[in-house]
Amino acid sequence: MNIALDMMGGDFAPEETIKGVKLFLSQNSDSSVNLTLIGDIDQMSPHFEPGHADSHRIHLVHASEVIEMHEHPTKALKEKPQSSIAIGFHLLAAGKTDAFISAGNTGAMLVGSLYSIKAINGVARPAIGAYMPRDNGKTSLLVDVGLNSDCKPENLLQFALLGSLFAKYILNFDNPRVALINVGSEEGKGNILCQTAFPLLKENKQINFIGNIEGRDLLMSKAEVYVCDGFTGNIILKFAESIYDIVQNRKIKDEYFNRFNFEMYGGVPVLGVNKPVIIGHGISTAGAFDNMILMAKKMIDEEFIEKIKSNFL
Amino acid sequence: MNIALDMMGGDFAPEETIKGVKLFLSQNSDSSVNLTLIGDIDQMSPHFEPGHADSHRIHLVHASEVIEMHEHPTKALKEKPQSSIAIGFHLLAAGKTDAFISAGNTGAMLVGSLYSIKAINGVARPAIGAYMPRDNGKTSLLVDVGLNSDCKPENLLQFALLGSLFAKYILNFDNPRVALINVGSEEGKGNILCQTAFPLLKENKQINFIGNIEGRDLLMSKAEVYVCDGFTGNIILKFAESIYDIVQNRKIKDEYFNRFNFEMYGGVPVLGVNKPVIIGHGISTAGAFDNMILMAKKMIDEEFIEKIKSNFL
Repeated sequence: MNIALDMMGGDFAPEETIKGVKLFLSQNSDSSVNLTLIGDIDQMSPHFEPGHADSHRIHLVHASEVIEMHEHPTKALKEKPQSSIAIGFHLLAAGKTDAFISAGNTGAMLVGSLYSIKAINGVARPAIGAYMPRDNGKTSLLVDVGLNSDCKPENLLQFALLGSLFAKYILNFDNPRVALINVGSEEGKGNILCQTAFPLLKENKQINFIGNIEGRDLLMSKAEVYVCDGFTGNIILKFAESIYDIVQNRKIKDEYFNRFNFEMYGGVPVLGVNKPVIIGHGISTAGAFDNMILMAKKMIDEEFIEKIKSNFL
Repeated sequence: MNIALDMMGGDFAPEETIKGVKLFLSQNSDSSVNLTLIGDIDQMSPHFEPGHADSHRIHLVHASEVIEMHEHPTKALKEKPQSSIAIGFHLLAAGKTDAFISAGNTGAMLVGSLYSIKAINGVARPAIGAYMPRDNGKTSLLVDVGLNSDCKPENLLQFALLGSLFAKYILNFDNPRVALINVGSEEGKGNILCQTAFPLLKENKQINFIGNIEGRDLLMSKAEVYVCDGFTGNIILKFAESIYDIVQNRKIKDEYFNRFNFEMYGGVPVLGVNKPVIIGHGISTAGAFDNMILMAKKMIDEEFIEKIKSNFL
């Protein structure tokens, strides 16, 4: 397999992307796992000299441009065809790589996923999954956290299925429980979207739907997959991230709140597109890149995309 | 003025409601402030004997029934006309009292507010305000937190105005800043509701609109009033409440997170109805009831309802 990494993406690139690659190589000796590193060749090559033990597993691809964090995604992808993100999607779409990882411009990663990799047949709206630390030491997957601000009930049903498959095959939860984020626990509660999505979720046999879940239950151990529109999910995720910042600023040392450090989860998957795409946090450091490579490897090992396709026939 | 309190509302009633009334009386000697206490007369009267220093300020009203927390609001109000909440709204609607406070069944309090007190002319949808502790030691008001799951852009504009007036006259913020909760900071971001509400908020001269605010900024010191639909607000509020529970469970002692104890704020106002109505948390104790009486007093002193009316002409 061949996993591609944008070496220029993230606030601490390329230092931390290089360290992350070395960390991965030092712990993974499987010679069938090759890495395609996309970035400025002059910055990369001194670190990956030919003759090095793992040099046969490394392919350097030069990218003369970088899409900066603040750039407009669609415009930047069009105007910078030689950027690491544009090249990454080009290689992925052409089948030359099997997965693509970047901690760069999130918007460009999403635009690339949707327009160059495209949605899997039957998936109306791809979504982004993100992790919520639960009080039992485990993690729930929150879908969608930002790709779809306005959703239809059928979209939420598809998010539930996409999230369930990810929770099962990548996060290793057996028969993951799915909950709908809502303002009350009973059926019939909530906004029109939730009221109409609830029966669709309840009737579907492909998911293990347990009903509504309220804001106060998000950190509890009630479900492995939380479903909501991307507007709600984005606000929940960013609010949770800010809690971690405050805990840090106030110098509170606590094992549970340390798990609100969203960097430790590596990156978040774009669910429902035809190839594995993983988006890292801007502040990603070596450990996060290592985790993202491992997640991409698992998505390929598990033939995760094929499993989604067979569930959306 | 005459402030009515449901003595049977809340998990620790009537012990804590009685203590709360005594706490208020011990700190407030203004003989023009009278309290109407509604509840089981046998439980109340031993605590408020005639001849007591403040007995002339206390009016006991017997209620032979109680609406329990789990009861269906509309049904319970209809079937229990002798309940403390039904009598409370009856007295308020008849002009015999000037404000009504209860920590009882929230749904019944809302139904009573909307159907017996009714919306102020011009207010399309009353809303509930709630408090968010900011990192600068101050508090922001979040509107709406649950009354309106589905909103139109004009509703959000009205929430902004109602919240601004409350922040100004009751929370004492000079020219309170209003922010729209959204998934990005730029105009044009977000779901259709936010995209269409933004220009309405921007153009309105009655409010000090500063633009969008993201989930990560909710605990920062960027605005005094946060506007969102009741679905989003409810999930944010309950999520924040759960953070406090976790901090308590993990025995973290921290001044800032102590302010996530939503009980310390007393109760939340129903904004946009014709009389002051304050809803307490089910777990309210004496201090919370004292705070709610003080808030009701301030709403009457400031002629808050009249100020709303003049802004909605």
